[in-house]
Amino acid sequence: MSAGRRGRARQIKHRERATGSGRAEPPIGPGLAGGTYRPLADEEVTRVCDAALDLLATLGVADPVPAMLTPALDAGATVNDAGRLCFSRPVMEALLDGSAKDFTLYGRDKRHDLDVSGDRVHFGTGGAAISVFDHRGDCYRPSTLVDLYDFTRLADQLVNVHWFTRCVVATDLPDPYDLDVNTAYCLLAGTRKHVGTAITVPENVAPIIEMFDIAAGGPGEFASRPFCKLHSSPIVPPLRYGADACDTLIEAIHHGMPINAITAGQAGATAPAPLAGTLVITVAETLASLALVNVIRPGHPMIFSNWPFVSDLRTGSMVGGAAETAVLNAGAAQVAKRFGIPCGVAAGMADSKLPDAQAGYEKGITTVLAGTAGANLVYESSGMLASLLGASFEQFVIDDELLGYALRAVRGIEVTNETLALDVIEQQVLGDGHFLGATQTLEMMETEYVYPGIGDRSTPGEWEDKGSPDIRVAAQRRLHELMQHHPMYLTAEQDADLRARFPIVLDAADMTVASDRWAGQG
Amino acid sequence: MSAGRRGRARQIKHRERATGSGRAEPPIGPGLAGGTYRPLADEEVTRVCDAALDLLATLGVADPVPAMLTPALDAGATVNDAGRLCFSRPVMEALLDGSAKDFTLYGRDKRHDLDVSGDRVHFGTGGAAISVFDHRGDCYRPSTLVDLYDFTRLADQLVNVHWFTRCVVATDLPDPYDLDVNTAYCLLAGTRKHVGTAITVPENVAPIIEMFDIAAGGPGEFASRPFCKLHSSPIVPPLRYGADACDTLIEAIHHGMPINAITAGQAGATAPAPLAGTLVITVAETLASLALVNVIRPGHPMIFSNWPFVSDLRTGSMVGGAAETAVLNAGAAQVAKRFGIPCGVAAGMADSKLPDAQAGYEKGITTVLAGTAGANLVYESSGMLASLLGASFEQFVIDDELLGYALRAVRGIEVTNETLALDVIEQQVLGDGHFLGATQTLEMMETEYVYPGIGDRSTPGEWEDKGSPDIRVAAQRRLHELMQHHPMYLTAEQDADLRARFPIVLDAADMTVASDRWAGQG
Repeated sequence: MSAGRRGRARQIKHRERATGSGRAEPPIGPGLAGGTYRPLADEEVTRVCDAALDLLATLGVADPVPAMLTPALDAGATVNDAGRLCFSRPVMEALLDGSAKDFTLYGRDKRHDLDVSGDRVHFGTGGAAISVFDHRGDCYRPSTLVDLYDFTRLADQLVNVHWFTRCVVATDLPDPYDLDVNTAYCLLAGTRKHVGTAITVPENVAPIIEMFDIAAGGPGEFASRPFCKLHSSPIVPPLRYGADACDTLIEAIHHGMPINAITAGQAGATAPAPLAGTLVITVAETLASLALVNVIRPGHPMIFSNWPFVSDLRTGSMVGGAAETAVLNAGAAQVAKRFGIPCGVAAGMADSKLPDAQAGYEKGITTVLAGTAGANLVYESSGMLASLLGASFEQFVIDDELLGYALRAVRGIEVTNETLALDVIEQQVLGDGHFLGATQTLEMMETEYVYPGIGDRSTPGEWEDKGSPDIRVAAQRRLHELMQHHPMYLTAEQDADLRARFPIVLDAADMTVASDRWAGQG
Repeated sequence: MSAGRRGRARQIKHRERATGSGRAEPPIGPGLAGGTYRPLADEEVTRVCDAALDLLATLGVADPVPAMLTPALDAGATVNDAGRLCFSRPVMEALLDGSAKDFTLYGRDKRHDLDVSGDRVHFGTGGAAISVFDHRGDCYRPSTLVDLYDFTRLADQLVNVHWFTRCVVATDLPDPYDLDVNTAYCLLAGTRKHVGTAITVPENVAPIIEMFDIAAGGPGEFASRPFCKLHSSPIVPPLRYGADACDTLIEAIHHGMPINAITAGQAGATAPAPLAGTLVITVAETLASLALVNVIRPGHPMIFSNWPFVSDLRTGSMVGGAAETAVLNAGAAQVAKRFGIPCGVAAGMADSKLPDAQAGYEKGITTVLAGTAGANLVYESSGMLASLLGASFEQFVIDDELLGYALRAVRGIEVTNETLALDVIEQQVLGDGHFLGATQTLEMMETEYVYPGIGDRSTPGEWEDKGSPDIRVAAQRRLHELMQHHPMYLTAEQDADLRARFPIVLDAADMTVASDRWAGQG
């Protein structure tokens, strides 16, 4: 029985246990088991892994930061003649053996805890657009802190967004400290799902943890159930450590923050043009991040986030919605799973600039392949447009629907005596020849099928009577409803404490329905 | 090495053979090997196959037509107490053993021949909408013969539509003979790709074959390279033979037409609600079609087209874009491949009524899963909207782009010494640290990557400068260009012969650019 199958069996058992008969369980949710899509044959995965390990052993990684050098050498790494840090295969395998395998990414509410083990699949956001698609004028404008707050509370309400990484940068806050502190504040106020953020410089880590402790109930409380992971790119492709990112990552480890170590190599630009070669170098780079984390603190929770990107070789620009991106990221998940480490990949990064058919197929193809490949965390899967340059509120609502379909595909087909339904078949075939009225049909209506919320299944005539709407119409209407809600996950005391100690600039008036920025829409 | 892997190796070898180095080969084309997505575990496929074979042995199929009864009984079938035709497991296995495995579906031009063996994947159209989406008014109108002609010549020009089944019914021709004859005429005039059509009644088969012979060069010529297959649904679900369809199918076999035997059971309506149960009964039904074909003429070319559809159980309506449809059809391909028979499934059947984001993700998810599952023929994958009720010219052009992405995903990641690129990595990492200028990058630019034709990869600023277009704008422009071309694949002599012998009502004036129905668009 393969790992994917074990995950499937576990999930069926879990469904049955949770409900007695399993009948009341909704058809989809976080943590369904993927692994049915395997773009690489087993021996091809082996070749990619071997090649990546060879690169680390011979070519190595440039510019290791001083703070990692001694512990890396202690762990058996060596510096070659070119001054590059090399990890021989036994050294790297020992680091892999000691690394964190199965762990939980906590929400501030236990209901949002994510078990990132095995083939369990979750969808969520990534970072970090610098602009917002304004659906009122089909145009882009710089993203602001208020946008980030609005995205946070929107993601909080969407069931198929399983965690929230700050998806836009508050470009109205040029100072790194103001940016980091106010970003953290938005995450604390707007959701109790697991969150993620970047931190600009090492010195900002301690203040951010202080904020998290306030929200968690007191000093040291964050580290007991760390509900926020650090998004970090400690590698500057190709194969070089980046000093600032490494130092911030090390500081975050010391404060008990889980690490999402992202490699964002780009095929044809910072990685080779053939997809296999891009996979090799980006796997090596993500292993170099894993080495960094584990020489600093063996077994520290780290997501192996190899997000191979693709260049449009006609222009050199990064593209996110390409089919090559889809297979590369699915392949990245498959390779990470060989190492047995919780992994993240990127999908849903449309190159389209608006929620049109192009955005739909780019997102549909990339997310469903990442999910069925069994990626534990599928980043960038909500709201992103314009090759990650922009985020869209409207697209966020459409993506929640799309991700429901992707999750249903991940769940697949359960084969049991009950679902094979031979007795029901015999009864209905020899009976009235129809299954619509069968007891089993009624029972499975809410557990086997996902129904659209905003997607349209009406007939052409019914649809014309409604005014021939594009799905954007229903998405904008739903968005307007959702934006009337201002969940607030800080107590008045916590809020006051945060505002007293930190330069919070998000206006309390912008955090109520009285704010008129969403009025008149929908 | 799995079948999928063998297919992959074959395709790489084929690419290398065709070009010497493989470098001039385009990145995608018909017949790429799928099979990397396997929604069912091997033992689950076995359980589904066993259950389907049990159904045929015990429950059997109602209403076998007289013409098949004697040959079926001769082959070992039995009639049970309820008067149903039963095939014991040994009988069915003998029929499977004698059935056509690998064969070619011919085009009238050899370049369009389709090798439907192994895991080779092709995309094309199916039938049969009764209305056309008019993008000039976002509304639906009944489909006509001229529409069918226009769809045929459009499909002829789109590279990722590998064959053409008449996708709309000429509703302006109420007489079945006029309908069948004029449908055949459109297919002959408008494309040399492999085609498919339904034939209404058995008596119409001989005249249609006469038409095909004229186009093929003379009496008997069609049967030597049959370029048109019959779309037939000999089973009325659940588990009953339909008299007219069976008799027409038998007549087509006698005339040498390959058969596309379609089962269109509908989960929750004519099939059980659980997906596994729907797979079981529809596999049994498609096997019953295979039994029919093979008792009439053992080894006659037949596509095992199990297209499990899904009902929206809230309304009972058939839906085409559901995630459940996606996994069911991928599962149907996987099961058919266990039998080793060329298979067809359905995908790309959006429930959306127009080319919007919903259509995009419904089509993206369903087509990429059907393709990666290794379905030999993915039907309904171009132009269909409104749960198969309508076809759209504009969507056809968008789908050609989408199918290019799906095909690139099917192709996957080739792992060879060249693509692992260890030497290129070392050279560039120790050199200028960038791969954009590497020789390998330039060489692989046109072979490793698919570039969009109408999809937009510009920056937000560039896109706004263009007027913030939806992909529909580019699709309509491209459509207008394509509709200026009137390929004519009948000689003047053949055309005159056909018009003399058959009641062809397609006006010659409608077959030239002088026709003004596409003027002023684009």
